Amino acid sequence: MAVIDINADLGEGFGVWRLGDDLALLDVVTSANVACGFHAGDPVIMRRACAGAVERGVVIGAQVSYRDLAGFGRREMDVAEEELTADVLYQLAALDGIARAEGGRVAYVKPHGALYHRVARDPVQARAVAEAVRVYDATLPLLSLPGSAVHTEAQGLTVVAECFADRAYTPAGSLVSRREPDAVVHDPALVAERAVRMAVDGTVIAIDGSEISLGARSICVHGDTPGAVALAQAVRTALTEAGVALEPFA
Amino acid sequence: MAVIDINADLGEGFGVWRLGDDLALLDVVTSANVACGFHAGDPVIMRRACAGAVERGVVIGAQVSYRDLAGFGRREMDVAEEELTADVLYQLAALDGIARAEGGRVAYVKPHGALYHRVARDPVQARAVAEAVRVYDATLPLLSLPGSAVHTEAQGLTVVAECFADRAYTPAGSLVSRREPDAVVHDPALVAERAVRMAVDGTVIAIDGSEISLGARSICVHGDTPGAVALAQAVRTALTEAGVALEPFA
Amino acid sequence: MAVIDINADLGEGFGVWRLGDDLALLDVVTSANVACGFHAGDPVIMRRACAGAVERGVVIGAQVSYRDLAGFGRREMDVAEEELTADVLYQLAALDGIARAEGGRVAYVKPHGALYHRVARDPVQARAVAEAVRVYDATLPLLSLPGSAVHTEAQGLTVVAECFADRAYTPAGSLVSRREPDAVVHDPALVAERAVRMAVDGTVIAIDGSEISLGARSICVHGDTPGAVALAQAVRTALTEAGVALEPFA
Amino acid sequence: MAVIDINADLGEGFGVWRLGDDLALLDVVTSANVACGFHAGDPVIMRRACAGAVERGVVIGAQVSYRDLAGFGRREMDVAEEELTADVLYQLAALDGIARAEGGRVAYVKPHGALYHRVARDPVQARAVAEAVRVYDATLPLLSLPGSAVHTEAQGLTVVAECFADRAYTPAGSLVSRREPDAVVHDPALVAERAVRMAVDGTVIAIDGSEISLGARSICVHGDTPGAVALAQAVRTALTEAGVALEPFA
Repeated sequence: MAVIDINADLGEGFGVWRLGDDLALLDVVTSANVACGFHAGDPVIMRRACAGAVERGVVIGAQVSYRDLAGFGRREMDVAEEELTADVLYQLAALDGIARAEGGRVAYVKPHGALYHRVARDPVQARAVAEAVRVYDATLPLLSLPGSAVHTEAQGLTVVAECFADRAYTPAGSLVSRREPDAVVHDPALVAERAVRMAVDGTVIAIDGSEISLGARSICVHGDTPGAVALAQAVRTALTEAGVALEPFA
Repeated sequence: MAVIDINADLGEGFGVWRLGDDLALLDVVTSANVACGFHAGDPVIMRRACAGAVERGVVIGAQVSYRDLAGFGRREMDVAEEELTADVLYQLAALDGIARAEGGRVAYVKPHGALYHRVARDPVQARAVAEAVRVYDATLPLLSLPGSAVHTEAQGLTVVAECFADRAYTPAGSLVSRREPDAVVHDPALVAERAVRMAVDGTVIAIDGSEISLGARSICVHGDTPGAVALAQAVRTALTEAGVALEPFA
Repeated sequence: MAVIDINADLGEGFGVWRLGDDLALLDVVTSANVACGFHAGDPVIMRRACAGAVERGVVIGAQVSYRDLAGFGRREMDVAEEELTADVLYQLAALDGIARAEGGRVAYVKPHGALYHRVARDPVQARAVAEAVRVYDATLPLLSLPGSAVHTEAQGLTVVAECFADRAYTPAGSLVSRREPDAVVHDPALVAERAVRMAVDGTVIAIDGSEISLGARSICVHGDTPGAVALAQAVRTALTEAGVALEPFA
Repeated sequence: MAVIDINADLGEGFGVWRLGDDLALLDVVTSANVACGFHAGDPVIMRRACAGAVERGVVIGAQVSYRDLAGFGRREMDVAEEELTADVLYQLAALDGIARAEGGRVAYVKPHGALYHRVARDPVQARAVAEAVRVYDATLPLLSLPGSAVHTEAQGLTVVAECFADRAYTPAGSLVSRREPDAVVHDPALVAERAVRMAVDGTVIAIDGSEISLGARSICVHGDTPGAVALAQAVRTALTEAGVALEPFA
């Protein structure tokens, strides 16, 4: 029987500002990537996200980022290795303490935004992130792109590959850049169908029609755009109807 | 035999900026109040302060603050109870995780600056801080002024009183406001003598010449002004020579 | 013929986050209080708000605030006089430069949130804000509550009184606290009717039924809650239909 | 008669933190690059730096930066063109308003840290900075490395080249990277001699012994390290004794 995890970003408001519908998403996902205050997520929002996750049995992950509220962590930064390790450690520890106060705990780490893509190709920053996890709790898995530099640099750690149901893939197995016109799949039925294939066969049809193997243990869905929660729900429903077991990886 | 703790604020730089001589202070104190990032203290500085403390057997405390880098946490803020609890929890957890990564742990909590003085008289903010400690680890003591509202509001928690060797006291046992001309004692010999009296007799001579009882378990020294470290060393030497045992309270 | 100004807060997003519908509000108001980056409003948002205002002939005001993104400027802060003057001057100058780059200019200043209410009763902070306006451009009016300390402390400056169509008033002419159950008027017809009375007669019916004189030159409407823009439009329509001329005060 | 300007970074503290000795530097330089709040420099510090510059007849420049207090603007960031233009415009306008309140004005713009080096080779970010200057005041010169992309991208603006008396140069005329062992010249006599050659002959001896032409109108000195002010004073004295006229370029 096929088994998959569904993850999404949560707690990405700050102060008066909100982004996405956290409670609705918590009913869809099995793992919640909770923002830790550097790109989004103030301590009150973090507590609420953790409380909501604990209440529903959703696993909590630390969505760590560059320190960049103004840019939502989407701008690549040349942070030195020692600084990046300390920044990630700080965020991870802060969220874990909050999660524990709510009866849960951080069970994995997922870099956010520009950091996510940077660590996929930069061994120095990949090592910096891995080092933070290692010194905090070396049993925590890192959620990452297949083929990411994290897989080679995070020695001694568990790295779990994820895939994206609503993103187009190149024949080489990487994501089509968002600058390309067909980078995102919008048709809910198609997204759901792709998710089922990812879970059941471990594959996706690339933009050139070829079938590629992903082998991902988790599917990432989004909740920050109009219609996103409905799309995420469609993915969950399709997976369940296809007989896929929804189980957190951590 | 008299027993006392010496505490001081540490790790109060940010980015390129430094304040005080952390390493020199770590050779003086038995407890280090490490800044947690809200008024000072970036994650690299926090790691170094914790590593230095662990190396010397100095106990680590979380110096929690309002979120106010520009004002160094010295400006009183009307933060709502829920927000303040979450802000303190976030800082406490972040520092504790960093301390643990360095082989130590946070063993107590001390509010900083304007928050320290606000919780001494505002039961709502005192409760908010106490609640953060309670949900994180109810065994952690709070370091506080004698007579502070923290003592009455932090039900179920341990509250430890501290005194200030270089500050003048009113006959009522409170600190003379820094706006008054004689608020601070500058003569090192006198400061050292006052510290010994505080440790051995548990008393201080107030500005009107009367002797008042403090019963403090810890003496706070400062390291952020020129000559401060020398003054702190003088206090330590005088205490040792008077046969006072220097022992952390936590 | 009665003449009134309609003002509203604009540009109160930050980074990816948005608050309210700036473009819709710009079609309602005659004066736009544009956030300057301390409680909300990043430079891109500020440029867009100014460009939109200039395009529609809406007058631009600087909505200056405490430095408090996490609290949206709604938390009172004990900022020293010199610091507050410099903070307000910085914000005012930044927005004015951006407005000029878009072909407009800042024509008035309105303190935001907790600062707005603090300067109404604290002469020190009122003086600090007034001093910033004075050293920048002493011809700029300050928008303020009737009876605010700003009126007495801003010597040599023009202070313009505003009123709130959707807020209840005490018989003494002050706003009913938002902690009270009937602080806000929700019925659009009633809000519109009150706005017309404010503009035509310069009065409002207080919560005890008494008629009080306001003498306000501007009516403040809101755009940051669901239905707020529709309510603001209703106010504008009612004013126009009552023959009130909508004209900026600055 | 040879003419040169001496520029240095000023106002680079934040809140309680200080960096360098602003008042001492103001007696050395003819142009002060004042930090604008994004990498350093709060509004009080900015006012004081501007007041000190005006008092001494020192020309004020806007030292604009990435938004990065934690990294002091030394970490390269992938800021989008529109955002960077708005960020620079905001800083430039804020400082100019403060300078005018003190009786001066901003007379030029110099990017700081990582932004300074990025715009030297990245046409997109160079254009973004130039666009901010253009929309604010197209008569303001940009201070820049010789050969910087700013020279080609800042069409219609004046770009002024600067050189560094205490930095080693490659035969190609670029600065030796700080990662190299001999990147910085420490001997005060040698630094002063190099400054005189830069001012009188417009040349520098590169690390391979070859003479290269710089043609710089301004020499940059530093004030943020121990001994830096003394070194800057030595440069000034040597220039004066060599008969070089010290005159601001803007």
